[in-house]
Amino acid sequence: TVLILVIQVLGLTAVILVAVWMGSFRGGFAWQSDPAHEFNYHPVFMVTGMIFLYSDAILTYRVFRNAKKTYLKAIHGIIQGVVLIFAGVGLKAAFDSHNLKNPPIPNLYSLHSWIGLITVILFALQWLSGLISFVAPKLSMGARQTYMPHHVFWGLAILCLAGASALTGITEKALFTDFFAHIKYSSFVTETYIINFLGLTILTLVVLVVYVVTR
Amino acid sequence: TVLILVIQVLGLTAVILVAVWMGSFRGGFAWQSDPAHEFNYHPVFMVTGMIFLYSDAILTYRVFRNAKKTYLKAIHGIIQGVVLIFAGVGLKAAFDSHNLKNPPIPNLYSLHSWIGLITVILFALQWLSGLISFVAPKLSMGARQTYMPHHVFWGLAILCLAGASALTGITEKALFTDFFAHIKYSSFVTETYIINFLGLTILTLVVLVVYVVTR
Ligand code: HEM
Ligand code: HEM
Ligand code: HEM
Ligand code: HEM
Ligand SMILES: O=C1O[C@@H]([C@@H](O)CO)C(O)=C1O
Repeated sequence: TVLILVIQVLGLTAVILVAVWMGSFRGGFAWQSDPAHEFNYHPVFMVTGMIFLYSDAILTYRVFRNAKKTYLKAIHGIIQGVVLIFAGVGLKAAFDSHNLKNPPIPNLYSLHSWIGLITVILFALQWLSGLISFVAPKLSMGARQTYMPHHVFWGLAILCLAGASALTGITEKALFTDFFAHIKYSSFVTETYIINFLGLTILTLVVLVVYVVTR
Repeated sequence: TVLILVIQVLGLTAVILVAVWMGSFRGGFAWQSDPAHEFNYHPVFMVTGMIFLYSDAILTYRVFRNAKKTYLKAIHGIIQGVVLIFAGVGLKAAFDSHNLKNPPIPNLYSLHSWIGLITVILFALQWLSGLISFVAPKLSMGARQTYMPHHVFWGLAILCLAGASALTGITEKALFTDFFAHIKYSSFVTETYIINFLGLTILTLVVLVVYVVTR
C-alpha cells in the first residue's frame, strides 16, 4: 500500500512535469489554428492517458480490495476506455501537427511513431478482448479462467510498451527542441532536468506497477 | 522451444542490423585516434552485450534442460560476466567519443545516458548478488529460496531497462544523423528502415524473453 501511494505520486508528478514542459517551456497549447502548438497536447494527453490513468485502472483491484467485483470491473473497464479516448485525442494532435504544417511533415517515419502506433493498436485489442470476455457476450467460467493470465500479462506488457513509446517520444522532442529552438539540451539548463526527470518518473512508475501486480 | 528459436533469430538480426547501420551507413569503426567513429562501437557492443548475450544467458536454463545444474549456473554467470565486459567497452567508446572530441561534448546530459547508466549499475549489482548468493560465499538454502524470485524479477526488469536504453539511444542517433549528416530520417530512405526494424527487433525480443521466462 505504501507502493501504491508512491505510484500515485509518481503518476501525478509525470503529469505535472509534462504539462509544465509543454505549457511553460514549449509555448503552451492551441488547436488546429496553430499546429505547432497543437502538438504540445500530444505528450500531455499521452502521458496522462497511457501512463497515469492506465496505471490507476490496473491498480483498481488492488486499491479497493473490499468493494463488489462488479463495481471494480466497471471502474477498471471504464477508465481503460477513457485512456483510449485520451490516446485518440493525443494522436490527433500529433498527426494534425504534421499534416497542417506548411509544408507538411511525413507521418509515421520514426521508430517512436511505429512503437507508439503498435502500442495503441494492442491496447485497443486488449480493451475489446476484456469487454468481450468479462462483460458481453461474456465467456464461460472455464474460458475466462484460461484467458485471465494472458489478460494480465498483456495488460502489463502493453504498459511497458507505453513506457517505451513515452521515453522515445521524450527523447525526440528533447532533440527537436535542441536543434530548432536552440535550447541546449546538453548544457544542463532547467529544461534538461524537467525532461530527464519526466523520463525517470515514467520509468520508475512502470517498474513499480509491474512489481505490485506480479507480487 | 519454437519461441526460443525465434528469440535467437531476433537476437542475431538485431546484432546484424546494428553492425550494418554503424559499419556501412555511419562510416565504420575506429578507436581513440578517431573519436567520431569510435562512437560507432557503442551501439554495437551495447546491443550485442546487453540485448543478445543477456537474453541467451537468461535462456540457458530453458535451452539445456537436462544438463547438470552446476554447468548451467557456470554458463549463466559467465555469460552475464561477458555482458558486463561488453557494456564496459561500449560505455568507454561513448565517453571517449565525447571527451576526445574538440571541443568536447558534455557527458551524461541526456535521458538516454541517465537510463543507460542506471541500467548498467543495476546489472552490475544483480551480477554481484547472483555471485554472492549462488556461488561464493553462497547463502543458506532458505535464503537462496527467498532471494530467487527477486533475482528473476530484477533480471527481467533490468532486461526491460536495457531495452529502454537501446530504444532511446537508437532514437538519439537517428536524429543526430538527420541533423548533422543530413540524412533525411523522415524521407523513408534505407537507413530509416534499418533503424526502425532494429528498434522493433529489440522490442519484440525483450517481450518474448519475458514471456518465456514467466510462463
Ligand atoms: C505514451 C504514448 C505515446 C504514443 C502511443 C505516441 C504515438 C505517436 C505517434 C503514432 C506519432 C506519429 C504521428 C505522425 O506520424 O503524424 C507520434 C509523434 C510524435 N510524438 Fe508521440 N506518442 C506517445 C508519447 C509521446 C511523448 C510523451 C512525447 C514527447 C514528450 C512524444 C513526442 C512525439 C513527437 C516529437 C512526435 C513527432 C515526430 C514523430 O513522428 O516521431 N510522444 N507519437
Ligand atoms: C486495454 C485495456 C485493459 C488493460 C490494459 C487491462 C489490464 C489488466 C491488468 C494488468 C489486470 C491485472 C490487475 C491485477 O491483478 O491487479 C487486469 C485485471 C482484470 N481485468 Fe483488465 N485490462 C483492460 C481492460 C479490461 C476490460 C474492458 C475488462 C472488462 C470489464 C477487464 C476486466 C478485468 C478483470 C475481470 C480483471 C481481473 C481482476 C482480478 O480478479 O484480479 N479488463 N486487467
Ligand atoms: C542498450 C544499452 C545502452 C546503454 C546502457 C547506453 C548507455 C549510454 C551512456 C551511459 C551514454 C553516455 C555517454 C557520455 O555521456 O559520455 C550513452 C551515450 C550515447 N548513446 Fe548509448 N547506451 C546503450 C545503447 C545505445 C544504442 C543502441 C545507441 C544507438 C544506436 C546509443 C546511442 C547513444 C548516443 C547517440 C549517445 C551520445 C549522446 C548522449 O550522451 O546521450 N546507445 N549511452
Ligand atoms: C546481471 C546478471 C544476472 C542476471 C540479469 C540474471 C538473471 C536471471 C534470470 C532472469 C533468471 C530466470 C531464468 C529462468 O527462470 O529461466 C535467473 C536464474 C538464475 N540465476 Fe541469474 N542472473 C544474473 C547473474 C547470475 C549469477 C552471477 C549467478 C550465479 C551463478 C546466477 C544464478 C542463477 C540461478 C541459480 C538461477 C536459477 C535457475 C533455475 O533454477 O531456474 N545468476 N537469472
Ligand atoms: O552528442 C552527440 O552528438 C552526436 C554527433 O557528434 C554525431 O552524431 C553524437 O554521436 C553524440 O554523441
